[in-house]
Amino acid sequence: MANSKYEYVKAFEQPDLLIPNTWIVVRIDGRGFHKFSNKYAFEKPNDRRALDLMNAAAKAVMTELPDIVIAYGISDEYSFVFHKSCVLFERRSSKLVTTIVSTFTAYYVHLWSTFFPDMPLTPPLPSFDGRAVQYPSIQNLRDYMSWRQVDCHINNLYNTTFWALIQSGGVDAKSAEKELAGSLAADKNEILFSRFKINYNNVPEIYKKGSVVLRDYELVEPGTVSEVEEDSAKTAEQAELSKTQEEKEKKRRAKARITVQHVDIIKDEFWERRPWLLSNKPGKIPKEP
Amino acid sequence: MANSKYEYVKAFEQPDLLIPNTWIVVRIDGRGFHKFSNKYAFEKPNDRRALDLMNAAAKAVMTELPDIVIAYGISDEYSFVFHKSCVLFERRSSKLVTTIVSTFTAYYVHLWSTFFPDMPLTPPLPSFDGRAVQYPSIQNLRDYMSWRQVDCHINNLYNTTFWALIQSGGVDAKSAEKELAGSLAADKNEILFSRFKINYNNVPEIYKKGSVVLRDYELVEPGTVSEVEEDSAKTAEQAELSKTQEEKEKKRRAKARITVQHVDIIKDEFWERRPWLLSNKPGKIPKEP
Amino acid sequence: MANSKYEYVKAFEQPDLLIPNTWIVVRIDGRGFHKFSNKYAFEKPNDRRALDLMNAAAKAVMTELPDIVIAYGISDEYSFVFHKSCVLFERRSSKLVTTIVSTFTAYYVHLWSTFFPDMPLTPPLPSFDGRAVQYPSIQNLRDYMSWRQVDCHINNLYNTTFWALIQSGGVDAKSAEKELAGSLAADKNEILFSRFKINYNNVPEIYKKGSVVLRDYELVEPGTVSEVEEDSAKTAEQAELSKTQEEKEKKRRAKARITVQHVDIIKDEFWERRPWLLSNKPGKIPKEP
Amino acid sequence: MANSKYEYVKAFEQPDLLIPNTWIVVRIDGRGFHKFSNKYAFEKPNDRRALDLMNAAAKAVMTELPDIVIAYGISDEYSFVFHKSCVLFERRSSKLVTTIVSTFTAYYVHLWSTFFPDMPLTPPLPSFDGRAVQYPSIQNLRDYMSWRQVDCHINNLYNTTFWALIQSGGVDAKSAEKELAGSLAADKNEILFSRFKINYNNVPEIYKKGSVVLRDYELVEPGTVSEVEEDSAKTAEQAELSKTQEEKEKKRRAKARITVQHVDIIKDEFWERRPWLLSNKPGKIPKEP
Repeated sequence: MANSKYEYVKAFEQPDLLIPNTWIVVRIDGRGFHKFSNKYAFEKPNDRRALDLMNAAAKAVMTELPDIVIAYGISDEYSFVFHKSCVLFERRSSKLVTTIVSTFTAYYVHLWSTFFPDMPLTPPLPSFDGRAVQYPSIQNLRDYMSWRQVDCHINNLYNTTFWALIQSGGVDAKSAEKELAGSLAADKNEILFSRFKINYNNVPEIYKKGSVVLRDYELVEPGTVSEVEEDSAKTAEQAELSKTQEEKEKKRRAKARITVQHVDIIKDEFWERRPWLLSNKPGKIPKEP
Repeated sequence: MANSKYEYVKAFEQPDLLIPNTWIVVRIDGRGFHKFSNKYAFEKPNDRRALDLMNAAAKAVMTELPDIVIAYGISDEYSFVFHKSCVLFERRSSKLVTTIVSTFTAYYVHLWSTFFPDMPLTPPLPSFDGRAVQYPSIQNLRDYMSWRQVDCHINNLYNTTFWALIQSGGVDAKSAEKELAGSLAADKNEILFSRFKINYNNVPEIYKKGSVVLRDYELVEPGTVSEVEEDSAKTAEQAELSKTQEEKEKKRRAKARITVQHVDIIKDEFWERRPWLLSNKPGKIPKEP
Repeated sequence: MANSKYEYVKAFEQPDLLIPNTWIVVRIDGRGFHKFSNKYAFEKPNDRRALDLMNAAAKAVMTELPDIVIAYGISDEYSFVFHKSCVLFERRSSKLVTTIVSTFTAYYVHLWSTFFPDMPLTPPLPSFDGRAVQYPSIQNLRDYMSWRQVDCHINNLYNTTFWALIQSGGVDAKSAEKELAGSLAADKNEILFSRFKINYNNVPEIYKKGSVVLRDYELVEPGTVSEVEEDSAKTAEQAELSKTQEEKEKKRRAKARITVQHVDIIKDEFWERRPWLLSNKPGKIPKEP
Repeated sequence: MANSKYEYVKAFEQPDLLIPNTWIVVRIDGRGFHKFSNKYAFEKPNDRRALDLMNAAAKAVMTELPDIVIAYGISDEYSFVFHKSCVLFERRSSKLVTTIVSTFTAYYVHLWSTFFPDMPLTPPLPSFDGRAVQYPSIQNLRDYMSWRQVDCHINNLYNTTFWALIQSGGVDAKSAEKELAGSLAADKNEILFSRFKINYNNVPEIYKKGSVVLRDYELVEPGTVSEVEEDSAKTAEQAELSKTQEEKEKKRRAKARITVQHVDIIKDEFWERRPWLLSNKPGKIPKEP
């Protein structure tokens, strides 16, 4: 019973290769997490357990997919960045996106009970959607990352004030929304401080800055490393020669600890001190303390 | 702190709408399941618990996504079919594929302990990749489904014989492979029967036919329903008029029980007796026995 | 001097195959033809020479590309239809579109002097852009064709009345526009008849119906041919067997005269009497009169 | 007679926007030019009239589309480069490609009689196909251009030797092909010189280097201009401010003479002395001599 009669249907599968030499960002988002966060009574404006669970899942994704150079998460979303030289899965878009979405979901569900020991998951279960976007230049990539971190800041300042008005100010959601409509950052800082004695500067960094996941190498003094070349088109010969080099780098990458930090990723300093992010050459493993 | 400076990066997101009026098949596959099945000592040639887990996850996916009309699974793969009239997520490919992959993964991990109570999951966790394919005609869609079911048959007959040779025949994998190279179906049936007293016809249907997941309406006598029209281009007016009709159908669909069957989906009979699969009009809910 | 060092740039070319088994429509449009028609003083509301030139170019395109089954033109646009079974250029979108656009342009420029003998072309020269669209079903394709022909009718009735008001009614463009704003077809017919003694029914068919280009076989009595099957998935064996058959059909197609007609393509009759359009099997060559 | 009933077919048109911030190369190729060049008895290995016609058509394309920064042609192919900041036609791929293909074809046909006054064009007419490719970085773009120029060199050396063997050496095509199989550049140079007294260095540059089409500004001393920034993501405000600046540049660009040169485009010098190519800022118009 040959299958040849039906095999023509394979021809309907269309290629979806991303362009070479572009930075690939896969962003995933929780599906219906507003409802989901209510079901499990997430604390407002931020639930530390929920964020820690997101971060734990993101770390697992980066561990299983060494091609990811950095990830950045806020609320129920996470962005994973593949270096522009990445050739994983021949850069097939569906394959890259679904692998990340599936791996992330698996760990989110699996680790749930660690972070929410008293609240067993019941259907409908949490799930995530995702998409891949290509960024041709380092500037575009950094602007993407900055965009997400600025969004984190804007949302968190709003939510912090909104929930202070409700939880401590005793107003209802509608009134809180109305009061904040059109308000500037300074206004919200003022409301927080004068009415609720909250100094926004003292809000934990994880809420203000979001979470950056990366491999932990020794930081570099700015200026000591030659700048990352925008272009690194390798000839076939060079590629051949560097096979052993690649093996070495792979090992070094595997050895690096994956950490979660809550730091500014908009300023140059973050990128200058971590040249491995843009160069894709693993840094120096820090000595054990 | 406006975000407008960075928001230009959104323009790099490219639309990925599937063409209207095509059947959408999302096929997902276990990633590295050969290794995974060894880790958890899956029984060969088929592990009933593993298949039941796949089917339970597929049922959950169909429950959460009523737009799916039928699903078909073999081994560690599952195909989910959206009707050609489906407009879920505006037919965005990434969104459709990642939602299915993520939901399936969530249930697979969540239900694991139900089917493998003695084997706790440990990292690396199981995950799935997926892709969407468009089929313009009913014939193309049916040929796709037939392709998968023929594949199920071919693989299962091979695997059944292969593992009989090893488990009961005492030969090693290499010798078994060699013996089966170039053999016809009749040869394998003969090996099974003469050497191992296995009548392939008596192998459970789930292994021979795979698993079909669908909403359970009353079967229809072939010939009593007018054939499904290939085309159902609705005018805007018709679409408007049928809003209430749609609501009714939605409720009927929600009421239908989702079942898993192990039947032939290649022959016309399967489709003729279940006209709702191709028409997308829910059938009659069967009376409780 | 090997070229291997640079050849990696070929990897940036992305495939653009259209889905199998869909009808492909390539529509081309004159670029800046409003200005162009003023430059060469096209007659309003329709310039017969300009339309005849469009039709001559379209005939040439169909002669050079036998895979085109039908074409339909109005004003400065033309739609060319490839049968859903077409495999020309492996169904590469760019290749199909650019070949049609280029061939059409070549004949338009080359034949210009035949239709406009007293007006030599000078830069900027006329040019056309184009795009390919896929239609999964016959109904979708026919609705596309109907859409264009209804557009032809709407535009022509409007333009005929608009230019009558200006040319015979002595009003300026602004006043004509204002008078026609919100008017119904009946209103325009009334204006034409009562004020300008124009019976719209007597307007030449080429203006009212546009131009259909097709290979001229004997018309068929409706009902004498079995209906066109929506699906014609051929097995590999069938495909093999029909090679000689295909050769025969190719010759018959080459022999057929390509004609331009100005007829209704919305009603079923047009398609029923010309079953070769949808079946892609060439009809009977009519006997010379 | 409203058209709404059929307008749904517009939804089948799929967007084809190219990614922002990538260099767009549109390469066009003559269709069936081997046969075409025989029909009009093109001289071998190079027909100067045919190349001059190609170049004249390319100049016309660049005149009509000021967004093109450079073009490069060899034999019957031409590559047109849009700057990465180009937003013409919203970067719609089909629109960009078909506009270039159509404009090029129009001029090729229109100017034919100027370059081949004694050979009137007859059907089938010359035509071109084309495609767009995106290159994320300057290095990728320059490697693309180098790839084409190296190809020009390789092909021309081969063809020059091949035709010398036939035209002056009296051998047939098959023998010539056989003799050249596996030969190195040095071998071919040797054959040309020792047997046919041809010093390849003295072959006209247009044959050895191909044709570069660009706007003619004053050359710049290398090192006097700051290097082109890879990134030029403009904020919305900057974009607003520079509107008048843009107008000025547009005028300067329109004023620049478009020239055809036969020079090395592989070495840095070409690009360093013409910074406007990569920066997209028009240079200084040279004084009339």
